[in-house]
Amino acid sequence: MMAKQNFADRVIARTLELASPIAAGIDPRPDLLSSRAAAAAGGSHVRLARAYERFALDVLDGLVGVVPAVKVQIAFYEALGLPGVAAYARTLRAAKERGFLVIGDVKRGDIGPSSQAYADAHFGAAAGADADALTVSPYLGRDTIAPFLVRCREEGRGLFALVRTSNPSAPEVQDLVAGGRPIYEHVAGLVEEWGRDLRGAEGYSSLGAVVGATYPEELAAIRSRHPRLLILVPGYGAQGGTAMDVVAALDARAAGILVASSRGILRAYRAAEDRGASGRDAVHAAALEMRDQIRAAWDARRRAEGGPREA
Amino acid sequence: MMAKQNFADRVIARTLELASPIAAGIDPRPDLLSSRAAAAAGGSHVRLARAYERFALDVLDGLVGVVPAVKVQIAFYEALGLPGVAAYARTLRAAKERGFLVIGDVKRGDIGPSSQAYADAHFGAAAGADADALTVSPYLGRDTIAPFLVRCREEGRGLFALVRTSNPSAPEVQDLVAGGRPIYEHVAGLVEEWGRDLRGAEGYSSLGAVVGATYPEELAAIRSRHPRLLILVPGYGAQGGTAMDVVAALDARAAGILVASSRGILRAYRAAEDRGASGRDAVHAAALEMRDQIRAAWDARRRAEGGPREA
Repeated sequence: MMAKQNFADRVIARTLELASPIAAGIDPRPDLLSSRAAAAAGGSHVRLARAYERFALDVLDGLVGVVPAVKVQIAFYEALGLPGVAAYARTLRAAKERGFLVIGDVKRGDIGPSSQAYADAHFGAAAGADADALTVSPYLGRDTIAPFLVRCREEGRGLFALVRTSNPSAPEVQDLVAGGRPIYEHVAGLVEEWGRDLRGAEGYSSLGAVVGATYPEELAAIRSRHPRLLILVPGYGAQGGTAMDVVAALDARAAGILVASSRGILRAYRAAEDRGASGRDAVHAAALEMRDQIRAAWDARRRAEGGPREA
Repeated sequence: MMAKQNFADRVIARTLELASPIAAGIDPRPDLLSSRAAAAAGGSHVRLARAYERFALDVLDGLVGVVPAVKVQIAFYEALGLPGVAAYARTLRAAKERGFLVIGDVKRGDIGPSSQAYADAHFGAAAGADADALTVSPYLGRDTIAPFLVRCREEGRGLFALVRTSNPSAPEVQDLVAGGRPIYEHVAGLVEEWGRDLRGAEGYSSLGAVVGATYPEELAAIRSRHPRLLILVPGYGAQGGTAMDVVAALDARAAGILVASSRGILRAYRAAEDRGASGRDAVHAAALEMRDQIRAAWDARRRAEGGPREA
């Protein structure tokens, strides 16, 4: 069997094709559904799971041709028990059918046979959930990553290890300084080392990093030390990260990162549906707007860098 | 509604009652089932999930009256998709019905609404999985823990945050030294701080730590700095941790830790079943043996400490 195309190469190719370094976050919650759909679901987990699925299909249809990737947050599905887990797997499938690269935001992190079981659970097979890439936690070291690597290599899949997250308490552990460098910088180095065998033709490895947009200095520092680290960048928009913050991490072709935004894009849905308009069209417009913001910031940055410099 | 008894107090009470600081690990895998059951399940996830459930019921029946707690590894169930997830929830229920404190070994670690969704998913409610306590990852800081704390306080539930794990690559991140102290020691301090409001009558907090038996010096160091930190200790037996290693972390009443062992106890099952004997009885005997080993090591340690000392 021929190995599938390297995940990082697929990310770069699709990013360039759409001129859009975006992973739209699918984080379904009752307050993002149309008011009618949320009310109809009521307290029923079965109905809510079905409503999440319809919502996700609308959102996916709105995103076609605008973003290369989607990131689906499993926790919201897991909270609904079996019907939720089933809806999660079907949503991944629907996203793949529409041509998206699909990132399962599962943040798993275990070791040995347990880590292997998570790879089995989330990288296809009969279990149903078949993501192209997953988010994973690095706290236990290489033992968490190892069981996934073969699948990444042979099946063109990817991983994003948490390095510097976007949340307020991220510094508590991640910013402790060891040997003159913060922990997240050590972890970024480990991630690069662990992923060495997964480098594609573009020079990026399919083992990437999660670095939040809410800490632009840290993001810029990581990018300058690791010019070919594929980075998933959450925290854009609602959490405070701006377009200027994230473009600093793009490479010369405006690729190499996937900016994740969920609420920023998804919020448009309910407002539109509640006034009788198309949520799908609203999501489409919001994603286009985000793409254009990033492009404008990118152009502004290039102009600034290309212009005359004064010491 | 009256709040349920503090989780840490429940752990101490049951440990003293059974004179057994043990959490038996339920990590179902095909090679632990009887050969007949494994063969009958074949490649079917549905049949394998059913076989896991029967296996767990046998094991639980064998453990009644010997261990206060069980730790169920969700990854093996998750790998089987929906039938696995359903079997996991039913196994937790069966364990509770038999009087065990039930720890869901889920190692989740997310933030904000996603972390809240994990609490909803694994702390009861309609989703089905209803653990008394969970394992969680500390890499994202307090934001991971916060959504669980209310549930812990009001419902007598607990958490064990990963501090110093038992696996070979644990040192890569956890042993980096910041300000003269390894990261795991910083994390132990954070865990103690985050759990301050969850202290029970015995002085232990319901927010405990995971510290592996395979690194006895680190375990002893953490215990000496944190005399009232509830510790879940994996890595006993098959992974190399000995009874002498773990008793150093017990308090004056031989409580305050839960030594987790899965393969050490579960391995007896298949051997017995395959020769036509009772797997349940074999598990019972293996758990009694582990309890007696720990007691003997505890007695030896007390004698050594009580005896004459030479400088």
